[in-house]
Amino acid sequence: MNFIKNSQILIVALLLINVSCSAQTKVSSKKTTNNVHPNLILTQKGVVKIRAELGKVPLFDATLAKVKAEVDAEILNGIEVPIPKDFSGGYTHERHKKNFLIVQKAGVLYQILDDEKYAKYVKDMLFAYEKMYPTLPIHPQTRSYARGKLFWQCLNDSNWLVYVSQAYDCVYNYLTLKERKQLENNLFKPYADFISKGNPQFFNRVHNHSTWGNVAVGMIALVMDDNELLNRSLHGLKVDNIDPNAKDNDGGFIKKEGQKVGFLANIDEPFSPDGYYTEGPYYQRYAMYPFLVFAEALHNVKPEMKIFEYKNGVLLKSVTTLLNLTDADGEFFPLNDGQKGMSYYSRELVSSVDIAYFFGENNPELLSIAKEQGEVLLDETGLAVAIGVREGLAKPFVKKSVEYSDGADGLKGGIGILRAKGSNDELTLVAKYSAQGLSHGHYDKLSFSYYEGGNEILQDYGLTRFVNIQQKGGGNYLKENTTWAKQTIAHNTIVQNETSHFGGDFETGSLNHSNKYLFDISNPNIQVVSAKEPNAYPGTELHRIQFLLKDEDFENPILLDIFNVTSSKENQYDLPFYYLGQLISTNFNYTTPKFLCPLGNANGYQHLWNEGVGSSTNNNAKITWLNKERFYTLTTLVSENDSLIFTSIGANDPNFNLRKDSGFIVRKKNTKNAQFISVIESHGHYSPVSEIATNAFSTIKNIRVVFANENYIAISIETVNNNKKLVAVSLNDASKTSNHKIVIEDKLVEWTGAYHFNNLN
Amino acid sequence: MNFIKNSQILIVALLLINVSCSAQTKVSSKKTTNNVHPNLILTQKGVVKIRAELGKVPLFDATLAKVKAEVDAEILNGIEVPIPKDFSGGYTHERHKKNFLIVQKAGVLYQILDDEKYAKYVKDMLFAYEKMYPTLPIHPQTRSYARGKLFWQCLNDSNWLVYVSQAYDCVYNYLTLKERKQLENNLFKPYADFISKGNPQFFNRVHNHSTWGNVAVGMIALVMDDNELLNRSLHGLKVDNIDPNAKDNDGGFIKKEGQKVGFLANIDEPFSPDGYYTEGPYYQRYAMYPFLVFAEALHNVKPEMKIFEYKNGVLLKSVTTLLNLTDADGEFFPLNDGQKGMSYYSRELVSSVDIAYFFGENNPELLSIAKEQGEVLLDETGLAVAIGVREGLAKPFVKKSVEYSDGADGLKGGIGILRAKGSNDELTLVAKYSAQGLSHGHYDKLSFSYYEGGNEILQDYGLTRFVNIQQKGGGNYLKENTTWAKQTIAHNTIVQNETSHFGGDFETGSLNHSNKYLFDISNPNIQVVSAKEPNAYPGTELHRIQFLLKDEDFENPILLDIFNVTSSKENQYDLPFYYLGQLISTNFNYTTPKFLCPLGNANGYQHLWNEGVGSSTNNNAKITWLNKERFYTLTTLVSENDSLIFTSIGANDPNFNLRKDSGFIVRKKNTKNAQFISVIESHGHYSPVSEIATNAFSTIKNIRVVFANENYIAISIETVNNNKKLVAVSLNDASKTSNHKIVIEDKLVEWTGAYHFNNLN
Repeated sequence: MNFIKNSQILIVALLLINVSCSAQTKVSSKKTTNNVHPNLILTQKGVVKIRAELGKVPLFDATLAKVKAEVDAEILNGIEVPIPKDFSGGYTHERHKKNFLIVQKAGVLYQILDDEKYAKYVKDMLFAYEKMYPTLPIHPQTRSYARGKLFWQCLNDSNWLVYVSQAYDCVYNYLTLKERKQLENNLFKPYADFISKGNPQFFNRVHNHSTWGNVAVGMIALVMDDNELLNRSLHGLKVDNIDPNAKDNDGGFIKKEGQKVGFLANIDEPFSPDGYYTEGPYYQRYAMYPFLVFAEALHNVKPEMKIFEYKNGVLLKSVTTLLNLTDADGEFFPLNDGQKGMSYYSRELVSSVDIAYFFGENNPELLSIAKEQGEVLLDETGLAVAIGVREGLAKPFVKKSVEYSDGADGLKGGIGILRAKGSNDELTLVAKYSAQGLSHGHYDKLSFSYYEGGNEILQDYGLTRFVNIQQKGGGNYLKENTTWAKQTIAHNTIVQNETSHFGGDFETGSLNHSNKYLFDISNPNIQVVSAKEPNAYPGTELHRIQFLLKDEDFENPILLDIFNVTSSKENQYDLPFYYLGQLISTNFNYTTPKFLCPLGNANGYQHLWNEGVGSSTNNNAKITWLNKERFYTLTTLVSENDSLIFTSIGANDPNFNLRKDSGFIVRKKNTKNAQFISVIESHGHYSPVSEIATNAFSTIKNIRVVFANENYIAISIETVNNNKKLVAVSLNDASKTSNHKIVIEDKLVEWTGAYHFNNLN
Repeated sequence: MNFIKNSQILIVALLLINVSCSAQTKVSSKKTTNNVHPNLILTQKGVVKIRAELGKVPLFDATLAKVKAEVDAEILNGIEVPIPKDFSGGYTHERHKKNFLIVQKAGVLYQILDDEKYAKYVKDMLFAYEKMYPTLPIHPQTRSYARGKLFWQCLNDSNWLVYVSQAYDCVYNYLTLKERKQLENNLFKPYADFISKGNPQFFNRVHNHSTWGNVAVGMIALVMDDNELLNRSLHGLKVDNIDPNAKDNDGGFIKKEGQKVGFLANIDEPFSPDGYYTEGPYYQRYAMYPFLVFAEALHNVKPEMKIFEYKNGVLLKSVTTLLNLTDADGEFFPLNDGQKGMSYYSRELVSSVDIAYFFGENNPELLSIAKEQGEVLLDETGLAVAIGVREGLAKPFVKKSVEYSDGADGLKGGIGILRAKGSNDELTLVAKYSAQGLSHGHYDKLSFSYYEGGNEILQDYGLTRFVNIQQKGGGNYLKENTTWAKQTIAHNTIVQNETSHFGGDFETGSLNHSNKYLFDISNPNIQVVSAKEPNAYPGTELHRIQFLLKDEDFENPILLDIFNVTSSKENQYDLPFYYLGQLISTNFNYTTPKFLCPLGNANGYQHLWNEGVGSSTNNNAKITWLNKERFYTLTTLVSENDSLIFTSIGANDPNFNLRKDSGFIVRKKNTKNAQFISVIESHGHYSPVSEIATNAFSTIKNIRVVFANENYIAISIETVNNNKKLVAVSLNDASKTSNHKIVIEDKLVEWTGAYHFNNLN
C-alpha cells in the first residue's frame, strides 16, 4: 500500500511540473516561433529537409506519389460539404470524414511540393466549412450522449478538427490576416468551444473520446497560439457540472467525482507504466493517433514541456506495447470491444511507428514494421523512417513473451502473452487478468485466447458491431454487443450459475481487477502465466494457471490449462472453449437434439444453441477439430457427472448480427470446489491437395490430478507412448526462492520456486 | 439421330483399328525393344538426355533434389511392409500408400543418378512384398464391393501396381533373370490376376476405379511383355458374369448389359469429345494419372497404337478441359462428388500437364501452370517442361468462357462456364446441365455455382466426406453424402414438392440428361448459358437462362438468373441460394424462431435448420451479405405469397459431419407455372483496417417481368439512378438467325437471334 501511495504522489508531482511548464508558455516570448508556420507537425526546418531528399527515399517518395494521386483526384472531383444528416457509413458522414483526411494531405502537399493549387484547395474547403458552420444545428441523429454538428457524435467532430488544424497550419501563411481572423472567429474557435464547453460530458472525461476532444482543441490552440484553449486541452474545463451517475452510450461512467481530466490526465490514468491502455488494443490503436500527433505538435511548439518524457516516456513505450499485442499477421488481439482484422497496417499505426522511431531511440525493429506497412508519414518522422529503411537499418520486430500491467499504477492486473515456436508457426497464448477497461470492457476475468501464427485456435469473439457498415445499425454498437459479446459466457473462462462476472454490473466491475499470481518465462520450454480473481463471484475464488510447454514428445508446444475454483457453496460452473473449425471426433458419447433450443435465458446463454450434450466415463474427454488444414485436440479432465455441451452462437439473434461459431462447454454441477484441467494440442496437417492427413491423433493418453490440496496441485500427463510428465504448482506462494515438498504416489517431490516440471521417463 | 449413329459407328471403327493394333503387337518382333529397360515411362534415350541436362534446368533440378531428399529419408527409415489392417487414414493403409509412391521415386532416382542404393531399396521393397503377398488373405475391412489385399479396396491395390510397375521397370536390368521370375510368378502375375479375374465386378466396368485396375494390369503387362495381360487391360475380361443389377458402394451400377469394358472403353464412354469426364473434375483429376501415364507407356512401348490420337486425341484435350474447370486459385469446381480444395497443384495434374505439353503441341500456356506447380515429372516430359520454363517460353494460361459437352457422343448436356472480368477479380458462373455422372453424380440439374476470383459467392456444397481422415468414417463417404450432398436441395436449383430430381433415383437419373438450349459468348458483355430439363419431374419442364452482363451502371458484371418453370399441375417450388458469409441486410420483414426445427423430413430437407421466414410486399426481395471483405446482393422477384426462408445446414447431423453454412430459399407454393428472376451483384468493399465501406448498397432499384408468354420472357432491370435495361429471350428458338417481335408496354421490340439486350437510356 505504501508503494501505491508513493506512486500517486509521484504522478501528482509530475502533473504540477507540467502545469507549471505549460503555464510558463503563457508568459514566454514564443510568439515569434509560433508565427512561423508550419510548426505543428511539419516544421519549416523539416520541410527544407524533406524537399532536399525528394526522389531519393523510395518509401517516402512512394507514399508521396500515392497521396498526390489521391488528392489530385479529389481536387478534380470538386469540394462537397453537404448538410450533415447520416450516421457513420452514410453519405454525409463519409463525405465529411473524407474531407478532413484529404484536406490534411493537401496541406502537406502544399508544403512539400510548393504548389499553390493545394493551398487553394485547402483554403476553399476551409471557407466552405466557415460558411456552413455558424448556422449548423446539432446533428439530427439523436443516438449519441454527445451529439456533434458535422457528425452524429462529438467524437467525429473532434477527429475533423485534429486533421483540419494541421491543414490550417500548412496554409497559415498562404492566408491573409483577415482570412485567418474570419476562419478563427467563425469556425475554429466556436468549433473548439462546442466540443469542449458545449459538451463537458464528452470533453471532461478519461476516455478515448475525450482524448480526441482534448487533442482537437489543443491542436487548433497551438496553431492559433491560444493559450487559454491550450490549457483547456491539457487540463480540461474547470467547471463541468457532470452528474457522477451519468453514463455514455456504451454504459460507461462519464466521470468519477474529483477525477482529473484533460489530455495529461488521459495519459496518466488509462496507460499503465508498461504502456498498456486499459480499454484494450483496438481502442489503444484508435487513440494512438491523437496521443502521438499532439505529442509531436507539443514537442515542436512547446519543447520545454518535454512531453515525450511524460510519465517515464509512456507514450513512446506504448507503441511497442501495441505492436506486441498483435498476432503473426499484425492483427490486434480483440480484447474487450475490438473489431477483428484491425492491424498495425492501420493509418494510426503508421503514424505511431514513425513518431516512435523518430522521437524514441531510432529502434531499428520499428523499421521492419514500417517496411511491411509500405508507407510513412509525410513529415520529418516519416522521412527519418524512410531513410532508415533505405539505408538497410531495419531489423526484424521480434515479438516475445511479455506481461503488461494494467492500471495507472500498474497494479490492476494485466495481460500476459506467452509465445513459443512450433514446428510451423508460433503458438501464442493471450491471458487476460486486467481491470474492467472502462466502457469498452468485457466481463471476462481470467479468460484467454490462443493462436497459431495468424490463426485463432480458441477465439475471443471480439465485439458485435460492423464498424461503419450503415446497414448494421448505422455502423454502431449493436444490442448483441451487450447481450452477447460483453457477457462472460462469450469468453473462454468460467461462468458460475449462468451469471456473468460481477453480475455483469459495470459499477462493480469497474471497482475490481484480477490479481496477477505468477508470470515466469525464464525457462523458454516451461512458460507460465497465472492470476486469481476473488471478486467476480463473491464467496468464490477463481485461480487460473496456464503453462505453455515445449516437450519433445509433442510436435508443437502444448497448452496446459489449470482452472482451480474454490467456493463457500455449491454452484454450477461452465468453462467454454470457442474453437474454430470442423469437429472431427470425440472420445465420448453425446446425443444431438431433433430441435435446437437456447442453452439459457439470459447473460449471453440466450444466444447459444444447445447442439448436443454428452458425458464421459473415462475421466478424460477429448475433442479433435480441423481448422485451416491443421488438427487440434482438447483433452480435459471430467467426471461422469459433468455435461459436455456443444454449442453454436446465433440464438435470439433476430437480425443475424452474430457469427455462427461453434463452442464446447464443460459443465460441472452442484460443486463447491472444482478443478478444470485441460491440455490443448496443435498437431498434424491435412492437405486437400495431397489428401494426406499426418499426425491426426492426439498424443495424450491421459491427464490426471495426482495431488491436490489447498496449497498445491500436481498433474500428470501421459502420452500414447507411455511417457509421463509431471507438473506441480504451488497455489499460494509464487516466490522464486521458496522450497516445496509434497508426496505424490509415495514419492517425495521437492522443488524451489512456484512450479515444478519433470519428465518421468 | 443420324449424327449419333455415325459417331457410334466411328467409335466402333476406331476400336477395331486399335484392337487390331494391339493384336498386332502379339505377333510383332517387339521383344528386343521390350527387353531394353527402362522403357515404360523413363526410356533409355530419355535417361541419357536427362543426365546430360542435370544441373542446368532449375525446375527439374529442384524437383530432383526434393525427391532425393524424400527418398533418402525413407531409406534411412527402413522398409516397413505391415500386415494390412486399416481403412484409409490408418497406419497400414498410409504405409503401403507411401511405399508405392516412394518406390516409384526410388526407381527413377536409380536411373537418373545411377546410384545402386536406390536399386537395392527397390529390390528389397519388392521382395518384402513378394514374401508377404502369396499368403495374404482378402483385406479384413469388409465395407468395399471389391476388397483388395494390401488395401481395403481393389482400387488402392491398383494404385499400388501402377506405381510399382514403374519401379520394377527401372530396376529390371538390375535384377537377375531368376529374381525377375520370382517376383513375376509370386507377386506381379497373381496380383494382376487378383484385381482383374479375381474381381470382375471391379475390373470390368466403366468407372474411374476400373480405369485404375485396367491401367495397373496394363502397366505390369508392358514391363513383363505379357500380351495376354495387355489385352485384358485394354479390352477387359472376356467373361465376368456380372449381374446387371449389381451396384457398388456409392450406389452406382457395376455394368450395363453388353457394355464394352477395359481401358479403351474407359476412354470412349466417360469422356465427351470436348474432354469432359462425366464424373466431374474431381474424379477426372483422380483418373488423369492412370489415363495419361499408361498412355505415355503405351506410346513408348507400343507406339504403333498411336494412343494419343485415340478418339480425336481426347486424352490430351482433357488436360486443358480440366485446367479450365478451376477457379482463380486453380481449385476444381466441386461438381458432383468433389472435395473442395483439390487443385491443379495435385500430383496428378503435375503429370498431366507435363505429358500434355510433351505429347501435345508444346502449348506454352501449360508452362505457366507448370511454373505455378513448381515441380515436374522426373522423365522426358518433365524435362521438356523444365527446359521450356528455363527458356522463358511460358505464356499465361487464359481461362475463357467455354462450354463442355457431356456424354461419349457429346450429346448429353454439358457444363457451361461464363467468365467476365470485374473491377477486382473475374466473375465466374459454372452452370451444370450434364448427365448423371455415374455413381458420383448429384441430383442437381440446372444448378450453378458462382465465383469471384478464388472465392465462392454461391457455393456448390461438394461432397460429405473427409478423404483419408480416419476419424471420419475411415476417410470414406459418410452417410450424409447420400442424405444431404447428393440431394437436389443441397444445390442452387429448383426442387419441386421437396423431392429430389428423378425422385433421387439413380437408375432414372442415369437414363436422363438436361438439354442444352443456348450458349452464346460472342458478345463479351452479354454472355448467356441456358438449358432445359424436361425429365427431372415428369409433367414439369425446368428452363434456366443465365446472363453474365457487363454494364457500365454496375461496378462488376451482374448475373441475371431466369428460371422458368411450366407444369401440368400445381406444385411447391423451392429455389435455394447457398451464399457464404454474414447477412448484412434484407429489404423485407422476417421472423426468427425461438427454437430451430428442420425444414423438412427427407430428401436433404431434414438437414436444414429453418432459421427464419419472411415475405415481401414490394415484388423485389433483396438480401445483402458480406464475405471476405466484399458485399453481395441478391435481388429476386417475388410475390406476397412467396416464403423467403433462411436456413443453416446441420440438422440431423449426429456426428457433426456437415458444415454449418447458410442458405436462402425462395419458395413458391401451389403454383403451376413459375418464374424465378434474380440478379446477383458483387459490389463494394469493406476493409477492417481502414474501416471504410464502399459501395455497400445494391445498384438495383427493381427488376420486373415486362413480357411473358410461352415463347418469350422479357425482364427490365432499373438502377437506383433510374437507368433501365431490357433483356428479352426467346424460350423455344435458340437460332442465331431467327427474327423475333414482341410488344412491350406498347412498344414494338424486334431482334434477331435468341436474346435481346437494350439499355433504355
